[in-house]
Amino acid sequence: MSTETTLTFHADRLAALRLWMSGQQVDAYLVTSADAHQSEDCPGHDRCLHWLSGFSGSLGRALVLKKGAVLFVDGRYQVQASRQADPGLWQIAHLHQTPPGKWIARETGHPCLRIGYDPMLWSVNQADDLRKALASCGAELLPLPDPFSTIWADRPAAPKGKVRVMPEALSGLSASEKLETIRKDMAGEQIDLWVESRPDEIAWLLNRRGSDVPMHPVPLSFALIPMDGAVSWFIDPAKLADDSLDALTVKTEPPEAFLPRLAELAQGRRVGFDPVFAPDAVTVAARKAGAELVPSTNPIMLRKARKTAAELKGYRDAHHADGIAWVTYCHWLSVEVPRRAAAGNPVTECEAGDRINQFRQAVAGYLEPSFKPISAVGPNAAMCHYNPTPGNDTPLMPGSLYLLDCGGQYESGTTDATRTFAFGDCPSGLKTAATAVLRGFLSLSMACFPKGTFPHQLDALARMHLWQLGLDYDHGTGHGVGHNLLVHEYPHRLGKLPNPFGLEAGNIMTIEPGYYLEDGFGLRVENQVEVVAGDNGFCSFRPLTLVPIDLGLFSLDALSPEEIGWLDAYHARVRAELMDELSPESRVWLASATRPIAALQSGEA
Amino acid sequence: MSTETTLTFHADRLAALRLWMSGQQVDAYLVTSADAHQSEDCPGHDRCLHWLSGFSGSLGRALVLKKGAVLFVDGRYQVQASRQADPGLWQIAHLHQTPPGKWIARETGHPCLRIGYDPMLWSVNQADDLRKALASCGAELLPLPDPFSTIWADRPAAPKGKVRVMPEALSGLSASEKLETIRKDMAGEQIDLWVESRPDEIAWLLNRRGSDVPMHPVPLSFALIPMDGAVSWFIDPAKLADDSLDALTVKTEPPEAFLPRLAELAQGRRVGFDPVFAPDAVTVAARKAGAELVPSTNPIMLRKARKTAAELKGYRDAHHADGIAWVTYCHWLSVEVPRRAAAGNPVTECEAGDRINQFRQAVAGYLEPSFKPISAVGPNAAMCHYNPTPGNDTPLMPGSLYLLDCGGQYESGTTDATRTFAFGDCPSGLKTAATAVLRGFLSLSMACFPKGTFPHQLDALARMHLWQLGLDYDHGTGHGVGHNLLVHEYPHRLGKLPNPFGLEAGNIMTIEPGYYLEDGFGLRVENQVEVVAGDNGFCSFRPLTLVPIDLGLFSLDALSPEEIGWLDAYHARVRAELMDELSPESRVWLASATRPIAALQSGEA
Repeated sequence: MSTETTLTFHADRLAALRLWMSGQQVDAYLVTSADAHQSEDCPGHDRCLHWLSGFSGSLGRALVLKKGAVLFVDGRYQVQASRQADPGLWQIAHLHQTPPGKWIARETGHPCLRIGYDPMLWSVNQADDLRKALASCGAELLPLPDPFSTIWADRPAAPKGKVRVMPEALSGLSASEKLETIRKDMAGEQIDLWVESRPDEIAWLLNRRGSDVPMHPVPLSFALIPMDGAVSWFIDPAKLADDSLDALTVKTEPPEAFLPRLAELAQGRRVGFDPVFAPDAVTVAARKAGAELVPSTNPIMLRKARKTAAELKGYRDAHHADGIAWVTYCHWLSVEVPRRAAAGNPVTECEAGDRINQFRQAVAGYLEPSFKPISAVGPNAAMCHYNPTPGNDTPLMPGSLYLLDCGGQYESGTTDATRTFAFGDCPSGLKTAATAVLRGFLSLSMACFPKGTFPHQLDALARMHLWQLGLDYDHGTGHGVGHNLLVHEYPHRLGKLPNPFGLEAGNIMTIEPGYYLEDGFGLRVENQVEVVAGDNGFCSFRPLTLVPIDLGLFSLDALSPEEIGWLDAYHARVRAELMDELSPESRVWLASATRPIAALQSGEA
Repeated sequence: MSTETTLTFHADRLAALRLWMSGQQVDAYLVTSADAHQSEDCPGHDRCLHWLSGFSGSLGRALVLKKGAVLFVDGRYQVQASRQADPGLWQIAHLHQTPPGKWIARETGHPCLRIGYDPMLWSVNQADDLRKALASCGAELLPLPDPFSTIWADRPAAPKGKVRVMPEALSGLSASEKLETIRKDMAGEQIDLWVESRPDEIAWLLNRRGSDVPMHPVPLSFALIPMDGAVSWFIDPAKLADDSLDALTVKTEPPEAFLPRLAELAQGRRVGFDPVFAPDAVTVAARKAGAELVPSTNPIMLRKARKTAAELKGYRDAHHADGIAWVTYCHWLSVEVPRRAAAGNPVTECEAGDRINQFRQAVAGYLEPSFKPISAVGPNAAMCHYNPTPGNDTPLMPGSLYLLDCGGQYESGTTDATRTFAFGDCPSGLKTAATAVLRGFLSLSMACFPKGTFPHQLDALARMHLWQLGLDYDHGTGHGVGHNLLVHEYPHRLGKLPNPFGLEAGNIMTIEPGYYLEDGFGLRVENQVEVVAGDNGFCSFRPLTLVPIDLGLFSLDALSPEEIGWLDAYHARVRAELMDELSPESRVWLASATRPIAALQSGEA
C-alpha cells in the first residue's frame, strides 16, 4: 500500500469519526491507546488509536476536534508519532507536558466545549484528572458509546483465547480459599461488592490462565465479587469451552452483562474498586444505581503479591529450567559468535533472540516467551526498548557488546533476566561505568531491609555508584513478576517515584540497573529475586535467576571483598544447581564461566 | 495544687464546653492541639487542648461528646496522655489507628451527629479527611467560632512579640524582589490571590523576623498576596511599633480583618492556598465569596528553600561561630566531666545542656537557642525527644555515653547538630551499632546524586549499614533548616515517606542517623549541610557544621579507605577553620580531637 493511499485512509477515518461526533452532538472526542483493562499490550480489536492515526506506539491519547486533531505521546514517541501520523491531519503534543486536559484548557477558544469519551477505556483516575483540568475552562466530559464499533468496518474481532486451569498444586490455594481471604479484606473496608477489571487479578483469584494476547496469559474479562454467593465472571463463553467451574464459587456471564449486572448489584451498597485501573464506566453505573463508591487499593493485587509456598517453588522450578536454557545458549553464543563471524555469516540480533527461546522449548514446563526478547548489539543496546527488525538487524561480532533481556512463561512461573556479554576485551572507560552498574546490582542483591520497606527507599542503592561517576539510567530498577501471569506485575516498583507498597517475604521482583551511552553501548544486569525474611524479621533478596554474569565486562579489582564473596557464592550456586543437567560441552563452559574471581584475577584457565 | 483540685478543674472545663455546645446545637465538638498556623510550638494562648484535658504533648486531638470525651494521641504519647488526662473524664484513642473521623464512624451510634469544629485550627486537608470519614456515617461537620474565647476565663493573651528587620545584606533579596518571583509563580498557575497562613513564609517574604514564641523567630500573622498592589499583612500593630514598612509593598491590617478582607478580594478570582497548612476557614470564606479554589504547593516555600548566596554565606558564618562554641564546650566537657565526677559533684544533663548555650552567648551573631537542647546520658538518650528535668537529671560520669542535640538562632542563620561523646572505653557491641550509624552518616555525606533527586530516595543510604545488622532507627534522617527561621523547615524531609520535593543546590538539610537501644543507650551523629552542585550537574552535601566527631565510639578498622579519607578531610577542615579563634586550651583539645585516623590507630598522642 502506497503512502498516499494510507494517508487517504486516515483522512477518511477522521472524517468518519467527525460524522459520528456530530451525530452525538459533541465538539470533540478523546481517544486512548488503552483497552478496558488498562492492559500493557492490547489485542488488535482495541488498537483504535493506531487505526485512527497510524501511530503504533504502546501509549498515546488523541483529541479529535471538528477541525484539527492532536496526538499526545511521551518523550519516547515524539519522533515515531511525527513519522507515523500525517502532519496534514495531526499535530503532535507532549503527553506529560501538555496532557489533553491542559491542552484543551489552554488551546481551545471554546469555553463550553462538549467533549465525548468512552468511559470503559479511561480509568476513574484518568477521567477525574480530565474533569479537573476541564473544569477550569468550563468544558464538559460526556460518556459516549464506543464509536469504533460503528466506524471501523474491518475491525478485528475481540480475541477468544482459550482458558486453562492453573492447577491447585501449583497455585497453593483453591479459588474458594482465595475468595475467603479477599472477603476478609473487603469486610475490613466495609465493602459489599468488589469490582474487578484487571484480567491478571481474575486469573489469580480463579486459578485460571488465558490466551487472548500472546505472552500475556490472562483472560480478558471482568468480575464482580459480592460478600456472599458466587463471583460473577463476565467472559466470552467461547473461551471456556473445556472448563469446569465450581458453580458455587463462580458463575459466568457474557461480557456485555458486566455493567447492567453491576448496576443491579450495586443498589444501596458500598462498592469497592481500584481507581487506578477500574473503568470510569464503573463509577458512572454505580453512582446511578445509588451505590456508595469506595475507591480502594485492590485487595486481590495485595494478596497476589505475597506468593504462596507452592507458587514460590514454582518460580524456583521455572528458573531452574530457564537457567538450563540460558547456559546452553551462553555456550552456543561463545562458540558460534566467533565461528560464524570468521565464516562471514555472523549471528545476528534476531537469530540470537530467537535462539534462546528455541533452547527454552527443550526445557521442562516452558510455554511461550514472557515478552519479545530485547536482543541488541553495541549502540542498539543504548535504546532501552530496542527490538531488532529481521533482515535489518546487527551482527554479533567479536569485540562488540551484546545485551539480551528475555524471559519465559512456564507452567509454574514467569521468568525475566538480562545479561550483557563482552565478546573480547572491553575498553576501560566502558569498564568503569559497567563496574558501577554491577556494584549497584550487588548493593541491592546484598541488601537487608526491614519488612515493609517501600521500594522507593531502595532504588538509590542500585544507582549510588553510577551517581558517584555523574552517571545514571533513565528507567526503573525493578518490578514485580507474575506467576505465569504478567511479566510486569503490580504493585511493587523499584524506582524513584513513591511506591507505597512495602516489601515483605514472598514478593517477587527484578533488580535491573543499567547504563546507556547514546550511540555508544548499553549494558544491564538483571536478576529476578524473591524477598525472603531472616530470623530477625529483616528481609533480603534471594536470586531466582540462575545465569552466570559475564565478568569480562568489569574491573574486578574495584570490587570489595564482600562483593567478590557474593559473586563467587552466586556462581557456585548456579554451577551446583545446573551442572548435572547440561550437555558435556555446556558443562565445560559453565565451569569456566563460574570460576572464583581470585582464579580469574590470577589468570587461571 | 492537689491532684483532686486539678481533676475538678478539668471536669468543670468539660462542663463549660458542653454548655457552650448545647448553645450551638451540636452533639459533639472537635478540639486540636494546633494553632491557626499549624505551628510546631504554640503560644500559651493556643494551648486549648492542654487547658481542657491536662494533656501537655505537642500533638493531640479531642472529641467531646454530650457524654464522654476522647483524647487522640500517637504512639509516643499513649502513656503520658493516660497519666495527664483524668480517666474518669477521658478515654484515650490512637491518633493514627483510629483517628477522630474513623472513631466517630465506628463508635457513635448516632447516624446524624452534628459535630462542631473551629475552621481556623484545622487545615483544609485535615478538615477534608474528617468530612470524608464522617460522610460514611452521615455525620455533619459544622464550622463554629472559637469556644475557648468564651469558656477559658484566664486564657493567656495572644503574644505581641516585637518584629525586627532581616537586613537585605543577609537575606540577599528585597521583599519586592521576592514578591516579583512569587507573582511569576502565581501567574504560571493562573492564581490571582495567594493566601498565606505560615508565619515563616511571611517572615521570609517580607524580610522580617518575629518573637512571639521563644526559639521560633516568626511573627504569628497572615498575609494575602494579590497579583498587583501591596501585600496585606494581618498582624497585631503592637508587634510593629518600631518597624518601617514600604507601603507600596506591604500594608498592615489587624488579624481580625484577615477573613473579611479575603472574602472581599476573593470574589470571582482564582484563590491559591496550600491545603496542607491553610486553615479550612480560608476555603469556607473563599467559596462563599464565589472564588475558584486552587489548592497548590506553596510557591513561597519552594523559593525559600533555594537559599540565596547571601543566606548561604550567613549559614556558613553562623556555623563558624557555632563551631567555636561547640569546640569550647567539648574541651570544657573533656576537662569537667572527669574532674567533677572525681570531686563528687558531677556535671548533670541540665547543666551540660545549658552550658553550650552559655558558650554560644560569647560568639558573634548569637541570638537564642534554636530548640531546647536534648542533653541525655546513657539510657536517657534512647528516648529521642528526652528533655532532662532540673534537679532530677542524670550525671555525666566517666564510662557513660552522652548525647547532645542542640542549635542556635543566629542573625545570619539557624544551626542544628548532634554529637555523642564516649567518656572512656565503649563496649564492642555498642561499637558495632555505632559504626553502622557512622557509616550511614558517611554514606549520605559522601553521596552524589542528580539534581531533583527526591529525599525519599536517599534515606536508605543512611540506614543500610544498620539494616545489615538487623537494626534501624525510628525517626527521619534529615530535615530542612530555616535562615534564622524554624529549625524544622519545609518542604524537604529525608525519610521513608514520599517527599516529592527534589533536592537542588542551595537547599539546607540535616543528616542525622542514630541508633537507640531501649534502657541501654542512644547515639546519633548529625551534621547540617548545604546541597552543592558539581560541574557535571550532580549534587552533593557539603557540611556546614564544624564540630569534631568523637571517634572513640567507633570501630575504625571497619571503615573503608574512602570513609577514613572523608573523616580526616572533615576534621582537617574543622581544624583549619576554627583553630585561630579558640582559647589556647581549646586549641590543644581540637588538635588532638582532629588527628588523622591513621595516627589514632597507631596510638599516637
